[in-house]
Amino acid sequence: MLYFPPTSGFDRVMIRPLALSCIVAGMATSALAADPPATPAALVAQAPAHAWKTIAPDSLLVMTLEGGRRVIVQLAPTFSPSHVANIRALARAHWWDGTSINRVQDNYVVQWGDVTEKKPLPKNLSPTSPADYSRQRATLPIHITPAPSADAYAPTTGFSDGWPVAMDREAVWLPHCYSFVGVGRNLSPDAGTGAELYAVIGQAPRQLDRNIAVVGRVVEGMALLSSLPRGSGELGFYTPQEHAISIVSVRLASDLPEAERPRFEAMDTASRTFADYLRLRANRKDDFYDRPAGGVDLCNAPVPVRAVP
Amino acid sequence: MLYFPPTSGFDRVMIRPLALSCIVAGMATSALAADPPATPAALVAQAPAHAWKTIAPDSLLVMTLEGGRRVIVQLAPTFSPSHVANIRALARAHWWDGTSINRVQDNYVVQWGDVTEKKPLPKNLSPTSPADYSRQRATLPIHITPAPSADAYAPTTGFSDGWPVAMDREAVWLPHCYSFVGVGRNLSPDAGTGAELYAVIGQAPRQLDRNIAVVGRVVEGMALLSSLPRGSGELGFYTPQEHAISIVSVRLASDLPEAERPRFEAMDTASRTFADYLRLRANRKDDFYDRPAGGVDLCNAPVPVRAVP
Repeated sequence: MLYFPPTSGFDRVMIRPLALSCIVAGMATSALAADPPATPAALVAQAPAHAWKTIAPDSLLVMTLEGGRRVIVQLAPTFSPSHVANIRALARAHWWDGTSINRVQDNYVVQWGDVTEKKPLPKNLSPTSPADYSRQRATLPIHITPAPSADAYAPTTGFSDGWPVAMDREAVWLPHCYSFVGVGRNLSPDAGTGAELYAVIGQAPRQLDRNIAVVGRVVEGMALLSSLPRGSGELGFYTPQEHAISIVSVRLASDLPEAERPRFEAMDTASRTFADYLRLRANRKDDFYDRPAGGVDLCNAPVPVRAVP
Repeated sequence: MLYFPPTSGFDRVMIRPLALSCIVAGMATSALAADPPATPAALVAQAPAHAWKTIAPDSLLVMTLEGGRRVIVQLAPTFSPSHVANIRALARAHWWDGTSINRVQDNYVVQWGDVTEKKPLPKNLSPTSPADYSRQRATLPIHITPAPSADAYAPTTGFSDGWPVAMDREAVWLPHCYSFVGVGRNLSPDAGTGAELYAVIGQAPRQLDRNIAVVGRVVEGMALLSSLPRGSGELGFYTPQEHAISIVSVRLASDLPEAERPRFEAMDTASRTFADYLRLRANRKDDFYDRPAGGVDLCNAPVPVRAVP
């Protein structure tokens, strides 16, 4: 199965899918003729093996919901080490088992954790602070692929270590894009432990960048989260009359038996393939698009992620 | 009832809504003390009557779904006159009655119309062409409030006549923001009649701008559309085994009996209040936000719209 978290590669608004046969046929033809791929989807489908990097199993958080439905979050330890350490500790303590998805606010977030706020936290959590919302650029000697376009929220943006990043001269931080996961908190200086998490389900609420910790992104089950009924309580919390979704378990993939372990790869954002992907994302000029935008928003060029057998 | 289509004004990610009492109390206090409002929500709540403009009843498309659920779309005749003329003709012909919502693609669109593509269209529809995707700036002598930030998709952006707009030297067009409604089409030069419509349900797919007609925005029922089950067919179309949502009727508000007519107002984008709203949207610095972004995406400053009794 192939994912672009979160958009489909076929981002067109056809009246009906009839024309899909043309697209698929077109892809096959161009592969045979060794033409460069015309769409981001075709490019990703043809990406060479060396353009992909395995996601470490202890960076995959596997959440099983009532009814056996599954959501998988890729953690970002490079950019959010303190909070990710806590999230790993919480998963190893089985802390989320029996908690719930209890807030769904339209065009904003789906949030989960202990709605009672009374469940004791594991003793081994690390302290966090607003300083954890970004990293010093100097401490991150990693390759940055520049983003193609101007951004409304940061002086510079790009892609690094498999993630979109926003930057100023000193700091680098993860943006609040669709499907990205952050850490709920109370008023500052509280920076959240990592026990209360949310996923973005609408237009990127980038005003939250550097006001809250971003710790990862959903790589499986996003459509499940985004289609949950909206809560009618304040801020979209479910009222007692509404059905909060029970969380059966949350585990790191590395703690699952080998046979049950999901495996994912993300496209190497330092690869030539990813640079080509960005170029195509910014310049759609295939059979449906007459007029390439010549640019693409940081949150509209999701790093391709795929499940592997 | 007050809407920001589409985000709530309380765009914060609190652990739980406890602190909402503080916000509400804060709003009341500042109103008493005549302090300037600290949040976009407070500002909209306190906006003077002259900052609002009535939306014409023949620009409100009222869609009633099975079970009596209702979605209302505000049409944008200023920016998309040909397609809006067709949509009005289709509504007056009761053309959508008995059709369905038949496509839901995650982080992209919800689409409705005649999935069979066999229903005859009214004879009085106007021809459309890709030239209808934008308007000549010179033909639109209307006030433009500049947007505060750079945009990845257009040289200039702003707000005009109650709508966000993207522009170059010659042309002005509506962007594909969350909740915005566009016209499905087949391959170019087909520009769609207006019979097949979609609403954006995720990160703004701005690459579609000027490749397709944008005709309006959802002002009521957005959460209903965005939480529909995703279709498992190609491009998110519902398969025969999935439940397409029947459309009972689609009417212009102006064609409804006076007593059943919904009434809406949009904030005047040329008003001082709207300029203040934009400034607050770009510079959140209330009790939850430590670090104002200093900017805001064109699609992240939705023009406030409210239902009126």
